Amino acid sequence: MKIVADENIPLLHNFFGDVGEIDTYPGRQLTSENVKSADILLVRSVTQVNEALLAGSRVKFVGTCTIGTDHIDTDYLQKNGITFSSAPGCNANSVVEYVISTLSVLSEFRYIDFSDLSVGVVGCGNVGSRVVSTLRRLGAKVLAYDPLIDQTDMASFEDVLKSDVISLHTPLTTDGPYPTYHLFNESVLAQLSEQQILINSGRGAVVDGSALKRKLKSEPGFTAVLDVWETEPNIDPELARLVAIGTPHIAGYSLDGKIGGTEMIYQALCRHLGLPARHKAAQFIASPPLSKMYFTSEAELSWSMHTAIRAIYDVRHDHYALRRTLGGNEEQRVEAFDRLRKEYRARREFSNIKVLLKNTDSSMHTMFKALGFNVKSA
Amino acid sequence: MKIVADENIPLLHNFFGDVGEIDTYPGRQLTSENVKSADILLVRSVTQVNEALLAGSRVKFVGTCTIGTDHIDTDYLQKNGITFSSAPGCNANSVVEYVISTLSVLSEFRYIDFSDLSVGVVGCGNVGSRVVSTLRRLGAKVLAYDPLIDQTDMASFEDVLKSDVISLHTPLTTDGPYPTYHLFNESVLAQLSEQQILINSGRGAVVDGSALKRKLKSEPGFTAVLDVWETEPNIDPELARLVAIGTPHIAGYSLDGKIGGTEMIYQALCRHLGLPARHKAAQFIASPPLSKMYFTSEAELSWSMHTAIRAIYDVRHDHYALRRTLGGNEEQRVEAFDRLRKEYRARREFSNIKVLLKNTDSSMHTMFKALGFNVKSA
Ligand SMILES: NC(=O)c1ccc[n+]([C@@H]2O[C@H](COP(=O)([O-])OP(=O)(O)OC[C@H]3O[C@@H](n4cnc5c(N)ncnc54)[C@H](O)[C@@H]3O)[C@@H](O)[C@H]2O)c1
Ligand SMILES: NC(=O)c1ccc[n+]([C@@H]2O[C@H](COP(=O)([O-])OP(=O)(O)OC[C@H]3O[C@@H](n4cnc5c(N)ncnc54)[C@H](O)[C@@H]3O)[C@@H](O)[C@H]2O)c1
Repeated sequence: MKIVADENIPLLHNFFGDVGEIDTYPGRQLTSENVKSADILLVRSVTQVNEALLAGSRVKFVGTCTIGTDHIDTDYLQKNGITFSSAPGCNANSVVEYVISTLSVLSEFRYIDFSDLSVGVVGCGNVGSRVVSTLRRLGAKVLAYDPLIDQTDMASFEDVLKSDVISLHTPLTTDGPYPTYHLFNESVLAQLSEQQILINSGRGAVVDGSALKRKLKSEPGFTAVLDVWETEPNIDPELARLVAIGTPHIAGYSLDGKIGGTEMIYQALCRHLGLPARHKAAQFIASPPLSKMYFTSEAELSWSMHTAIRAIYDVRHDHYALRRTLGGNEEQRVEAFDRLRKEYRARREFSNIKVLLKNTDSSMHTMFKALGFNVKSA
Repeated sequence: MKIVADENIPLLHNFFGDVGEIDTYPGRQLTSENVKSADILLVRSVTQVNEALLAGSRVKFVGTCTIGTDHIDTDYLQKNGITFSSAPGCNANSVVEYVISTLSVLSEFRYIDFSDLSVGVVGCGNVGSRVVSTLRRLGAKVLAYDPLIDQTDMASFEDVLKSDVISLHTPLTTDGPYPTYHLFNESVLAQLSEQQILINSGRGAVVDGSALKRKLKSEPGFTAVLDVWETEPNIDPELARLVAIGTPHIAGYSLDGKIGGTEMIYQALCRHLGLPARHKAAQFIASPPLSKMYFTSEAELSWSMHTAIRAIYDVRHDHYALRRTLGGNEEQRVEAFDRLRKEYRARREFSNIKVLLKNTDSSMHTMFKALGFNVKSA
């Protein structure tokens, strides 16, 4: 069995080493020549997988270890009997923790109490639905808007816009009945007051960047958080200076999320080949840098929550890293944006961290569990 | 034995309960009538202790559980054979941790590497000398200026002014050969470049606030950190908005520091009375809210350092708390400044926290020890 793969797939050899012989290439440079004698093709989002790449090859399975499928000609694969698998949701929890860290950090300079917060979620797929459930577990009042799914439990766009925090988790679409391109345009932004917070970690162009910039200039109290940007990686440095928190498209970049993508494709391939899935991410993944925290009966709920969240993931770190790059010229900024993503640290998700509670009351246990920490009594 | 004491002395009854009978009063309202039949008087910095208070009393021991002695007429006490004791240095380590947290936080948006930093310390007494030794242990190049002590190891004022960071730890003096009042005036401030950082956690009027304000307006890249302010508690809100970090005179406010003051006076009283000092602060003081952190071989030195520092004390918390008060009118601001100090949380010093290191290299051990954490191998 011959596997051709993008060299940047994490833990590639650990997962697939005993499935077949692996040849690796830079994902952007994969040619039909490279793929010709492969049975299995494993890519990330940078490789265009279509007739031009696959015609005349033996490939019977294509896996992309990422959530998107825009780079894959799924029609072609289907017509040619090639099994296809992607990794939807693998980085969804990473984005949830980004949103949580963002709200934790903003709570320093504005009143935010999770148990007394209304949040509107726009787009309720893999990421959005997890944002909804986590924030509800933390006591927030959450409304979700998503016109394309079962409407039980969904709210209207107008009602969602009234929430204290509005968090965007839609893809970018320009056609169909509910295109998301510039869904947050001048007139929608005008409906948001200075007390509200807008977070976009979906796709940049869902928000009209020029309109947002004008709003932030005329209403400097308005709080915008952007992880995604129009014209990424060439982002608007002026807008990046105006947002309260601005990060280089890394909301989904936890190590767990990245490796989860490889694991999901490994499982799909095992199903395709009728092999037992022997490997699990947990076998290969190192312990987190900070592995345990003990809280005692002296710990106050809100202090403990923010201390734990920020110790594991403080979004200000990514915010300042991006800020530092804004002074350069266009070429330097583009290069820096990509570098920040490429060299991103091994950020771990809360579930890896043991929180040990000694004689604390049950609300501490409930809160840490809601956040996804591995909670134990000490 | 009768003890008269300020009601706000922490752990008063725990330490002194078995030494004598204790009567407590609000420190600002203590009268000669209250003190008349006392053998021992225990105060904080708010009580004026002088002939007016003590004449005609039986008092033979006066202790102030604070570092200053401006409120005590020590000549009168000496002439009347009254033993006096204060608690110099009790909050010195708290201030060291304030400076460390400040530098940790600033390192997010400017390049600061402790092992590659020059620091100039002005005033090398209880606090300053500990700032010097801690930063040296962390690898910084530290120069100190203090014209009033043994000059071995001291540098010139001019050389200290060239450091990346200049940290002020002098009292406020207006006479003598080296008065500190407005020591950092317009012309001294003019010598500091935009790359330098000025931290004042000594006394407010050591820096000319108006001159600093002008400098921050004309050189917005210059970094000033103020814990102490001219005309405190009525601070200049405009200056408070211009500084990178501004806090309400809480650098020395760790719980350990406060209780350390009571412990020092207890020990002095036991010596005075020839009694064994049976009590120690550790007996009475609760475990810290976050009591242990485990770091693994995956932990990178600088990430671990900043994560631990900020988990225990993130100075931004005090900074934003002060910021939120600046919008009020003068009366409200004064009230808020005092309230932030009075209701200050039980901040614990690094020494209370166990840092457990699992298979990390020795530089991690050295760094955590230098910071003062209770380091163990896990
Ligand atoms: N910032 C990051 O690092 C990061 C990480 C993961 C995902 N994302 C992005 O976030 C978005 C959501 O990811 P996902 O995995 O949840 O995708 P998904 O496909 O599972 O969910 C998207 C949801 O958006 C809904 N939607 C589509 N148009 C809408 C509209 N006009 N109004 C409201 N809802 C609409 C869809 O019905 C769907 O339920 C994607 O664009 C993805 O690329 C970003
Ligand atoms: N911000 C806070 O919460 C906080 C906490 C503790 C102490 N403090 C203040 O910090 C200052 C230092 O405290 P300490 O306990 O180290 O006092 P200290 O008396 O032990 O030390 C002060 C030192 O400053 C030196 N000094 C005096 N004039 C000087 C000058 N012109 N130039 C340089 N050095 C000079 C003295 O020689 C002395 O060594 C005091 O004013 C104290 O009130 C503030």
